[in-house]
Amino acid sequence: MRTVAVVGTGLIGTSAALALTDRGLHVYLADADLDAARTAASLGAGTTELPDGPVDLAVLAVPPALVGTVLADCQRRGLARRYTDVASVKAGPRAEIAALGLDTVHYIGSHPMAGCECSGPLAARADLFEGRPWVLTPTPDTHTETLNTALELVALCGAMPIVMDAAAHDRAVAMVSHAPQLLSSLVAARLEHADETAIKLSGQGVRDVTRIAASNPAMWVDILSANASAVADILEELAGDLDETVTALRALQAADESERKAGAASIEAVMHRGNTGQARIPGKHGASPTRYETVTVVLGDQPGELGRLFGEVDALGVNIEDVTIEHSTGQQIGRVHLAVSPTSALQLAASLCQQGWSIHKCATPRELGVSSLKGSSIALDRVSPVEHFDRGVLK
Amino acid sequence: MRTVAVVGTGLIGTSAALALTDRGLHVYLADADLDAARTAASLGAGTTELPDGPVDLAVLAVPPALVGTVLADCQRRGLARRYTDVASVKAGPRAEIAALGLDTVHYIGSHPMAGCECSGPLAARADLFEGRPWVLTPTPDTHTETLNTALELVALCGAMPIVMDAAAHDRAVAMVSHAPQLLSSLVAARLEHADETAIKLSGQGVRDVTRIAASNPAMWVDILSANASAVADILEELAGDLDETVTALRALQAADESERKAGAASIEAVMHRGNTGQARIPGKHGASPTRYETVTVVLGDQPGELGRLFGEVDALGVNIEDVTIEHSTGQQIGRVHLAVSPTSALQLAASLCQQGWSIHKCATPRELGVSSLKGSSIALDRVSPVEHFDRGVLK
Repeated sequence: MRTVAVVGTGLIGTSAALALTDRGLHVYLADADLDAARTAASLGAGTTELPDGPVDLAVLAVPPALVGTVLADCQRRGLARRYTDVASVKAGPRAEIAALGLDTVHYIGSHPMAGCECSGPLAARADLFEGRPWVLTPTPDTHTETLNTALELVALCGAMPIVMDAAAHDRAVAMVSHAPQLLSSLVAARLEHADETAIKLSGQGVRDVTRIAASNPAMWVDILSANASAVADILEELAGDLDETVTALRALQAADESERKAGAASIEAVMHRGNTGQARIPGKHGASPTRYETVTVVLGDQPGELGRLFGEVDALGVNIEDVTIEHSTGQQIGRVHLAVSPTSALQLAASLCQQGWSIHKCATPRELGVSSLKGSSIALDRVSPVEHFDRGVLK
Repeated sequence: MRTVAVVGTGLIGTSAALALTDRGLHVYLADADLDAARTAASLGAGTTELPDGPVDLAVLAVPPALVGTVLADCQRRGLARRYTDVASVKAGPRAEIAALGLDTVHYIGSHPMAGCECSGPLAARADLFEGRPWVLTPTPDTHTETLNTALELVALCGAMPIVMDAAAHDRAVAMVSHAPQLLSSLVAARLEHADETAIKLSGQGVRDVTRIAASNPAMWVDILSANASAVADILEELAGDLDETVTALRALQAADESERKAGAASIEAVMHRGNTGQARIPGKHGASPTRYETVTVVLGDQPGELGRLFGEVDALGVNIEDVTIEHSTGQQIGRVHLAVSPTSALQLAASLCQQGWSIHKCATPRELGVSSLKGSSIALDRVSPVEHFDRGVLK
């Protein structure tokens, strides 16, 4: 693959063009809005000139509702030998392409799972797709060489190809992206008219659940319009669980004890299902979620304190796998949770403690030295998985 | 206040005892389980001896269902001059105390908004409450000196006192804690039987929404049992919005255009309400959410790279306000989002870029130098808030 046409130079199209240009391909840029194509070209994403003959691949980076008509237009003009689109839903465009009777031997649907809260060509980045899943939806019509050309595109963009059926793709994104987005908005919407005092009690839990509720409504209406049925199906299933949960909560207050027990069992059951579902979400790099140990450091809010902490962690040669910072309401205090490998956690906690940091480390009973605890009359099943390092206990 | 009795030496009671002991108060520890009280004492939280006479304050750190009977017992024994409890719901215990005809002049309900996924005395920390809201629920019966004693407790623990009505407190925690917990579980429960391939498409959004779905079901059944009615009310309101959203999604596929438009308007409206609600959640230190600028750094997964980054940021003298790390599926790539003050962002991005880091910085149109962009025929409304630093554009 040497020549690519990118039709639609928004965030996704321009990012793909930048990645391909970086790899030495010749990229032709087109957009219904010539300004957008010129902006992409000025970023180094390619040229706005027309190709002399058919390019190897045309990437249609247009909204889902336009994929069919744009593909028809490009095929009529003989723009490329092969075609793909990168729209965020796949079944609708496929049905439209079939209805239009277009060539489906040299076309394959695709969807890179990347994006950001920004949009437009100036938001584009050559590395937008690096490490991201990129779904390909071939059909029995799709020629193997069409699939291979798309796989080359995905590889050149640094993404991870995943082959899926179009309808399965749409159900999957409804479940892992579109439905969670709407639920996050619905939880946040409850806060719209809440008392100021009630809002003050917000902690990290509700912050995380509602983070994506800050997303752009107009953009999401476009996405949801193209996948409405799959999203509605998921939400209806969830609404069934929600109704059962409300019923169970009401039952918790029943006069009859067996009714109360049934309510408690129902809530515990749905929360266990939540445990199971949550544990299935892939961790870093698509691996199974790794159980890192967490070392928690309490920081004041002195300028540079976070940088100083990381500098010292670095000097200790400990690799930090993940970081979360938890803020407090009302005071200048924060907690930094450092996820590190189980083998590094104790050493890190002890070293930082020696350097004067206030440290808490979640440790296993074995690490706590259960036998010595038993000796001081603490039963094994009461040993909690936390060692309070900065109080010098159990050292 | 010089002497305090802590009745119930779990996570909350022992943490309060540790904080008070650190401040030089004499703390008496009691627990139905003598081992738990002894563990707390061994951590330096106080003594398991009985006080000679009434202490200044008794802190009842027992489950909500036990507050009434434990208060009755303590008052009968004349344990303290004043009493508070720290249970996570307030209306139920108050009703029980009224039904038992107990002294409510020298009692005040309270609830520190703190905790962790751990439990038991060994998980306790003297700083557990630092910077956290601590709700006090006085009634017309409550003597001013009882309120002042509780305020002293809150201050000694480093927390921020918030006075609320008991029922308002219960509605507030239903909204900002209990209902979000259940919704997170319900979203995660959808993933329980999902195809492995579908789960692979999970991104940061669903990860955040479902983080707290990993919580302990049995513990939550206890919490929800004590606040079932308020939580059920919130969930029913949310279920109403959810039903409307499902109806709106179905309408998006209607043959009639005005029906489709109404569906889109309904979805856009609920998402706008979500925007508004989300924006009300207090940011760091209870202030209004500050609009920091985000500088995004792309990391490989070399050991120590994160530490090296923070070390260099520290050397630049830039104060990091918040950090999030976003992981990718399938490849060894991560993005670190550094929130810094708007005045530091450009300098930080430029300096890190010079040092060879791959940087993206979200900038305002003004910072992008809109006039020069206009000069190259890019209309103002197309300027996206991102500058692509490592390509050297717009420098």
